[in-house]
Amino acid sequence: MNGQRGQKMRETRDTKDTKDTKELYYEDLAVGQKFHSGTYEMTAEKIKAFAAEWDPQPFHLDEEKAKDSLFQGLAASGWHTAAATMRLMVDSELKLAGGSIGAGGEELRWPRPTRPGDVLKLEIEILEKRESRSRAELGIVKTRLTTTNQRGEVVQVSRPTLMVRRRGAAQ
Amino acid sequence: MNGQRGQKMRETRDTKDTKDTKELYYEDLAVGQKFHSGTYEMTAEKIKAFAAEWDPQPFHLDEEKAKDSLFQGLAASGWHTAAATMRLMVDSELKLAGGSIGAGGEELRWPRPTRPGDVLKLEIEILEKRESRSRAELGIVKTRLTTTNQRGEVVQVSRPTLMVRRRGAAQ
Repeated sequence: MNGQRGQKMRETRDTKDTKDTKELYYEDLAVGQKFHSGTYEMTAEKIKAFAAEWDPQPFHLDEEKAKDSLFQGLAASGWHTAAATMRLMVDSELKLAGGSIGAGGEELRWPRPTRPGDVLKLEIEILEKRESRSRAELGIVKTRLTTTNQRGEVVQVSRPTLMVRRRGAAQ
Repeated sequence: MNGQRGQKMRETRDTKDTKDTKELYYEDLAVGQKFHSGTYEMTAEKIKAFAAEWDPQPFHLDEEKAKDSLFQGLAASGWHTAAATMRLMVDSELKLAGGSIGAGGEELRWPRPTRPGDVLKLEIEILEKRESRSRAELGIVKTRLTTTNQRGEVVQVSRPTLMVRRRGAAQ
């Protein structure tokens, strides 16, 4: 890429980006901080397409059959809600240097199903942070991810532990 | 349903089903039971396609960029491993009457990433069971799902709680 094209791309980014897309390091995070996302709109078509590939059960695939299920109507697979939550996180205000990388977490719950027409959004809260004992270039950051629908009802809660680059680290 | 029709349906099912596709109720499950799955083969193409939609980060999308990441090579999104695990569960020996329905669980961990060429399989273990206090037609069953690769290395562990129909329940 030559300098001129690089300059043009940066200008384009500067125009559309807000300050919340600055890459953050471990040192930039504080317990209690919250970060927000855009939205993901669930539709019957998306619910069925995801389920056909990953969770092909009648209550995720067919409105009529779903009526007789525990869900009493078409509901998204919890893993669809989880995947949408990950996408909301990647596109959220929380831009971590090195990316959003976790080895899992202590909880993953769906207090209520996601339905067609739901509009999901995500709040990420920093719960705890500490330096890694084994890898000097990393910090360990515990978070709570709360995914809500358009009525503010919680559709997913998880507590992933993220591995976050320390500023000036070699990696 | 009259007795004769019930008998016929059972005969039809007996003809096409093998023993592991018999629908199981809460009463059929015992702590310590284990159920197994078929396999899911991960490929670079599947890793990139899933990531493009749900987890578009360089280490899930591009072999070259992945080399400089914490993963040191292309790795599947954990949510891809999770979705594949759900699919393995739906197609597994554990066929629950009413389907595999959970409200989440206490743990979801990826001890190591899933890589191109990995062949995943799942073991489901029944950890605990109790009758639902609020819904007479349901039992609450805690499980451990262990997803392994072709070397027997664990790539995902989760402990979902399932809601399982009781035999003869109205629902």
